[in-house]
Amino acid sequence: MYKIRALDECVFELGRLPGVGRKTAARLAMHILKMKPEDVQRLADKIVAFKENTLFCSVCGGLSESEVCPVCSDKNRVQETLCVVEDAKDLFVIEQTGYYKGRYHVLGGKISPLDGIGPDKLRIEELFKRITDEGINEVILATNPDVDGETTAIYLTRLLKRFEQLKVTKLASGLPLGTHIEYADEMTVLRALEGRREL
Amino acid sequence: MYKIRALDECVFELGRLPGVGRKTAARLAMHILKMKPEDVQRLADKIVAFKENTLFCSVCGGLSESEVCPVCSDKNRVQETLCVVEDAKDLFVIEQTGYYKGRYHVLGGKISPLDGIGPDKLRIEELFKRITDEGINEVILATNPDVDGETTAIYLTRLLKRFEQLKVTKLASGLPLGTHIEYADEMTVLRALEGRREL
Repeated sequence: MYKIRALDECVFELGRLPGVGRKTAARLAMHILKMKPEDVQRLADKIVAFKENTLFCSVCGGLSESEVCPVCSDKNRVQETLCVVEDAKDLFVIEQTGYYKGRYHVLGGKISPLDGIGPDKLRIEELFKRITDEGINEVILATNPDVDGETTAIYLTRLLKRFEQLKVTKLASGLPLGTHIEYADEMTVLRALEGRREL
Repeated sequence: MYKIRALDECVFELGRLPGVGRKTAARLAMHILKMKPEDVQRLADKIVAFKENTLFCSVCGGLSESEVCPVCSDKNRVQETLCVVEDAKDLFVIEQTGYYKGRYHVLGGKISPLDGIGPDKLRIEELFKRITDEGINEVILATNPDVDGETTAIYLTRLLKRFEQLKVTKLASGLPLGTHIEYADEMTVLRALEGRREL
């Protein structure tokens, strides 16, 4: 049986990416073979350049091209509000709304006992330090509304009670726009009812 | 709103791969950020090396590291039998069985009117030429058992009738091993019945 070593190696490396199994990796490899050489080179270059040039902001823990990210170094942002997100990519989604004017704190994950992630693995101490040092008066919890994210929010809410002047809020849960009540799960409808607003 | 240009570019390039949407590309990028620098470099290198060092065999159209692939240049293979596959990666699957001792012919796709792929886009003329020049006496059609693959097989069967001494066979359809009849679709069960074998 003959093998193309370069193919096997390419498939092996692609197959190590999350959500990419052997079959997907083989399909990607076949696509790469049909791409223009300059496109393949650019793909490879951009992957390496991203890895080489992207750091974690030393203040919020988000992604940055410099030691402190543009949000943390922007004096026009509301300095007293922190939005707590699980992951750096959540930060970009909130930024895209253009609504939020404060700053961020990236936890670096969520409490997940099944995956062996306890509170000590998250940037919680750093959050407390920032609340004290930076005179924070509102923390918006923007963890994901799944089991682990909700657990993390409840855990943080309890601990944040120690800061007496601090307002702690949480993103609203409810029906996502553009959907039908008919297709929503009962927990989402329950949350939408609980959080109903007077018009 | 701030952007990490290296992230956007990396996500854009990854998102051009088939089956990788923007969200998947962002997830892959976040994973790349957590990988070791040397692992990222190796991933990029292997992609480029694969592209640079892999050719299509000038005889069968399969993948090769040289002008003629190891199967086509192996004098110990049965020279008179050709297994016709849609794609180079199907060839590897058949090779893995270790059962087939003949050679291959890669069509480079299948007849698919919806995708604008007619018989003229496939390596069918090359197949006919090989049958004549190389004295082929059996062609095994190993196209996929889906609508387009079956269409391609029927089309080829009809055209191959012009070679009077040529035996044309097709891979058996039926129940895949390890499954239950209960879960098989009716067409598969029909094929299994039609193709039943005396024991």
